[in-house]
Amino acid sequence: MRLRGRKGIREELERQSDLVILDPKQYKGRWSEFFGNDHPIHVELGMGKGKFISELSFRNPEVNYIGVDMYDELIRRGAEKARKFRVENGQPEEPENLALALLNIEHISEVFAEGEVERIYLNFSDPWPKKKHARRRLTHRGFLLKYKGFLNEWGQIHLKTDSRSLFEFSLNSFADMGLWMRNISLDLHGEGLREDLVLTEYESKFVEQGINIHRCEVLIGDRALEEHRRSLQEQSV
Amino acid sequence: MRLRGRKGIREELERQSDLVILDPKQYKGRWSEFFGNDHPIHVELGMGKGKFISELSFRNPEVNYIGVDMYDELIRRGAEKARKFRVENGQPEEPENLALALLNIEHISEVFAEGEVERIYLNFSDPWPKKKHARRRLTHRGFLLKYKGFLNEWGQIHLKTDSRSLFEFSLNSFADMGLWMRNISLDLHGEGLREDLVLTEYESKFVEQGINIHRCEVLIGDRALEEHRRSLQEQSV
Repeated sequence: MRLRGRKGIREELERQSDLVILDPKQYKGRWSEFFGNDHPIHVELGMGKGKFISELSFRNPEVNYIGVDMYDELIRRGAEKARKFRVENGQPEEPENLALALLNIEHISEVFAEGEVERIYLNFSDPWPKKKHARRRLTHRGFLLKYKGFLNEWGQIHLKTDSRSLFEFSLNSFADMGLWMRNISLDLHGEGLREDLVLTEYESKFVEQGINIHRCEVLIGDRALEEHRRSLQEQSV
Repeated sequence: MRLRGRKGIREELERQSDLVILDPKQYKGRWSEFFGNDHPIHVELGMGKGKFISELSFRNPEVNYIGVDMYDELIRRGAEKARKFRVENGQPEEPENLALALLNIEHISEVFAEGEVERIYLNFSDPWPKKKHARRRLTHRGFLLKYKGFLNEWGQIHLKTDSRSLFEFSLNSFADMGLWMRNISLDLHGEGLREDLVLTEYESKFVEQGINIHRCEVLIGDRALEEHRRSLQEQSV
């Protein structure tokens, strides 16, 4: 999403340092300190207008959420949305388990230390359809190597997209790295809306228009993988 | 494909014992003997009208092909098509590297011995859309275990289907068994017809109608997997 910065937006964001992080690199290895607890940390890379992460952080107080985006206007709207969502649902305004970080995802390794993150959400990422831009896709091998660097032993990546070409690219990228996938879906809401998974703004519109959504989970951490294998074995007995 | 047997068809098939195998179980462990050489054996499970395997066996004389189907009428048509295809392309009528086997795929393990087959093609298999029929899908765990029993160290499965639901099921089935996939395609002919892969009768019609084709390869054999990993490593250096 390309947005023109509004005048004075930086000052507005600086006043919200409890929720908005303009220099997230300073917290590398210290995110638990920032949140004041050692709950698992889930990160949405490219949070768009922030509906998904607002809703998720509201639903799951035992998880710390970090929404990342490179546009300050999206960070501003995300913060507004998160507060509004709380108030509408009868909660205090300040989401204690949420941070919105201004960052170009290229530099994500500078923000998280080894094993600091438990889950990454990639929702409707830019498909970068031209071959010459393949490296910019958030499921490109180069990015996956970065993610592996900071995901912990329970680490997972959850991908959701309307783009068939990005999904195809991502499946191959995961497969070529020998990563373990599960819950692959080529038409997520084909049998009715999966509200349990929390819909993004894009997603609700796409579903209305009959555009189908692709989804998949990737197990990165050793313990996540072990547990998954164990549960598969139990099922197949 | 459900077909009514024609009268006298068995007699007609029995006269073609060089090409048509009515009792394929007799060749278990002896297929090289049947073909008179030790070329690799590729099997199409559910060969339909036989275009794919006729064309493939014509193109690749160094590979032995076995088309399997449970309907004698399809075996009859397949044999006819294979011979015709040869004659039209200026070759002697008798395809020496092709056998058409009458068999219910449920019994496939009784036809091939350990390590006897190098590749399985699954083209436009019945999607069996109802959940209670999931076990009949040719990529169900039960079938995959059977295939593993007779694929060799270079063993692969090549799957092609127009059915999104079967493809989704298959990807999850492969993933849940920890199998290594590659060349996953959600729209095989999206950038122009992939004639190199040989089209089935169904496929040509689907493409005309704008229905997209899904495809994927699964590496079963250790050596196939090793070689694939090596080539990926070379690419990523």
